[in-house]
Amino acid sequence: MMDKNIFVELLIQHQFKAVRSILDVMNEVDIASLLSELDDKELALAFRLISKDKAAEVFANMNNSMQTYLVEMFTEKELRELLDDLYMDDTVDLLEELPANLVTRILDTVSQSERNMINLLLNYPDDSAGSIMTTEYVGLRQSMTVEESMAHIKRTGIHKETIYTCYVTDKRKLIGIVTAKELMTSDDNAVISDLMETEIISVSTHTDKEEVAQLFRKYDLLAIPVLDAEGLMVGIVTFDDAMDVMVEEATEDITKMAAMSPSEQSYFETSVFSHAKHRIAWLLVLMFSATLTGTIITKYEDAFAAIPLLVSFIPMLMDTGGNCGSQSSTLIIRGIALNEIQFRDIFRVMFKEFRVSIIVGVVLALANGVRILIMYHDVSLALVIGLSLSVTIVISKLIGCMLPLLAKKVNLDPAIMAAPLITTMVDTCSILVYFNIATHVFAL
Amino acid sequence: MMDKNIFVELLIQHQFKAVRSILDVMNEVDIASLLSELDDKELALAFRLISKDKAAEVFANMNNSMQTYLVEMFTEKELRELLDDLYMDDTVDLLEELPANLVTRILDTVSQSERNMINLLLNYPDDSAGSIMTTEYVGLRQSMTVEESMAHIKRTGIHKETIYTCYVTDKRKLIGIVTAKELMTSDDNAVISDLMETEIISVSTHTDKEEVAQLFRKYDLLAIPVLDAEGLMVGIVTFDDAMDVMVEEATEDITKMAAMSPSEQSYFETSVFSHAKHRIAWLLVLMFSATLTGTIITKYEDAFAAIPLLVSFIPMLMDTGGNCGSQSSTLIIRGIALNEIQFRDIFRVMFKEFRVSIIVGVVLALANGVRILIMYHDVSLALVIGLSLSVTIVISKLIGCMLPLLAKKVNLDPAIMAAPLITTMVDTCSILVYFNIATHVFAL
Repeated sequence: MMDKNIFVELLIQHQFKAVRSILDVMNEVDIASLLSELDDKELALAFRLISKDKAAEVFANMNNSMQTYLVEMFTEKELRELLDDLYMDDTVDLLEELPANLVTRILDTVSQSERNMINLLLNYPDDSAGSIMTTEYVGLRQSMTVEESMAHIKRTGIHKETIYTCYVTDKRKLIGIVTAKELMTSDDNAVISDLMETEIISVSTHTDKEEVAQLFRKYDLLAIPVLDAEGLMVGIVTFDDAMDVMVEEATEDITKMAAMSPSEQSYFETSVFSHAKHRIAWLLVLMFSATLTGTIITKYEDAFAAIPLLVSFIPMLMDTGGNCGSQSSTLIIRGIALNEIQFRDIFRVMFKEFRVSIIVGVVLALANGVRILIMYHDVSLALVIGLSLSVTIVISKLIGCMLPLLAKKVNLDPAIMAAPLITTMVDTCSILVYFNIATHVFAL
Repeated sequence: MMDKNIFVELLIQHQFKAVRSILDVMNEVDIASLLSELDDKELALAFRLISKDKAAEVFANMNNSMQTYLVEMFTEKELRELLDDLYMDDTVDLLEELPANLVTRILDTVSQSERNMINLLLNYPDDSAGSIMTTEYVGLRQSMTVEESMAHIKRTGIHKETIYTCYVTDKRKLIGIVTAKELMTSDDNAVISDLMETEIISVSTHTDKEEVAQLFRKYDLLAIPVLDAEGLMVGIVTFDDAMDVMVEEATEDITKMAAMSPSEQSYFETSVFSHAKHRIAWLLVLMFSATLTGTIITKYEDAFAAIPLLVSFIPMLMDTGGNCGSQSSTLIIRGIALNEIQFRDIFRVMFKEFRVSIIVGVVLALANGVRILIMYHDVSLALVIGLSLSVTIVISKLIGCMLPLLAKKVNLDPAIMAAPLITTMVDTCSILVYFNIATHVFAL
């Protein structure tokens, strides 16, 4: 990694030749991260020293505030050049984040046809394939030979985000796919229509981007074609964007599973106020649900007045129930997210969880029963705790596995049925089970 | 999707021409999943009808039991053909899962040099770059022209897993990288040494595969070269394997965060007994830790004997504390996994969480205080609960954000510092805070 201080030093001393040669050997992603540590004036200076073939890629890797600053201070000509070199999906990403006056400035700079394309792309829903696709791809005709195709790519390929999958179209209808590998390893005179794959995996502009990412993983794709409502080809999604979607979706699920609304930004980018906002809503809901458990406890006032020791087992029962429930719900939520578990599997899942909970219940009840016998020499107490524990575990695991599947069925996000909600529900069950068993055994 | 019943019908009726033409248009991944629904005899029959250029890829996409069955009943010649067409990383994956007698059969079938290579690959640690790499890549020399390189790829490329990144080596030392895009869009007479990128992102055979996956995402790579201890090039990892690692790692983290040991297999593939085994250890630890909280409660017997209502707030305080703590720990664990948060950020994180917890604490305390005032008309009680809640929230969030970072520091997996463990710790704190405040305010 380049040392920031040395770099700034060279920049301030106007050692432009040295700076340029450093930038020349650095990777675009690393340049963007080095530039993110400079102040605005240094940034502008350094950016202008990046070679033209790298500048757009560096720009695409910058964070939003750096991009905004640069767009603001670019001359007309510089902006024009940048936009020429940016891929369409990066341009749209940029526009989505820029303040309105700069959006206008950019739309004024591009041609009418580009403006139409950008507006179209900006209008796709946030989580759709359309919102992450790019419109630049290599199109071939089925009558072309390999040699003609290669010549076509040599002429037009430099500005395509990927040239490794080529799309054979006929009046904008997608009829086949040829990979660059096929072109590179086939005879020059072979004809595209003989080489192309006609069983095509494609998505529509409105396909959920999570589904798109799953197709990439299932079929190991480099790019996937995107069709509009009439089935005409409008763009492609490339694997790097699919990879980002996969990681984002996992983060979103993990965040929701901890009872928070997900944030688009990283931890430090999110403000304190916005962190608090993302957390409070669920905490309030769960806090008031938990008072229900409290209310139920007060009904058994007489029981714990008679045997105060009973109260001391409440945290252990509640926590174990909660943990058992969230173990099950976590596995099911993840299984649903990875498309390994469907709603139709619900009885299979329940039967499996039931058997697991029996084993877990027996082991934990025995462990705790023995502990109680040793510590308190009280067989009835050991029986009450052991029995309560087993029943609580079975109930928790069944609730834990059913709720995410039911949520999925009614089109709610299964991830909200995770630890916090399950815990709150299981709390009430465990208290009811516990005090019912205790009052019977001790005849309170 | 092909209807399984129609397919089986055609197979049983020996309509091989029809079956073949169906298999010809289907994607390899889909064929593997269709075949997984057949019984063994049908599977053997159907597999032999797959065209030779697809068979290895279909085989690589099959599950372990199907692969084992096929290897068992293949003739020497069939096995030889399959192994010729399988990529080296898929062969190694296969060998890792097969029973010993079949491993021997395969090692007897391949050549001495392949056998050496396989043994080398099998010896890399499970979670290392070496264990997921393949040894087949396109190697070029720096003196070659583009035309010569393209001719070389045409001769040797068909059996490489990817030809889109080519590696320029000199006595097995990696000196540069050329993309197929560059080759396809450059002049035929251009020389590789002028085109190649010399700032190379590479990993060693022992680099953790999670780190490898992060490099793919950061730099949008298609493949990454793997170097041995002497810095010589030994293979590449391709993006599809990196994508799998990313998803596996997220699943592993999610599983650990719910207090389970992760399983390599999917939910249904894991047996009931093994599910139970993965869950019991943590449950036992957490169950016995939770009894500590119970023991502390018994110390305040007098307090809840005097005011039994106090007991009813225990679940609410414990749950809210647990949820607040796990919100913080979840964000930090994910931030660490995505390389966005480091140990050196610990004070920045704590200060941020402190401010967030103040906002959250005040809002929740007010909401609950008002509820208590309305329900019980008791100012002291509202004060006790509000105060306990706020203090608990601040403590929980600080514990929640510190523990994953401390775990990282001492080389433990931060993911184990998630909801269940945090909840158990926070429980004790919340009970102590609560009864201390209560005994003071009510002068018990």
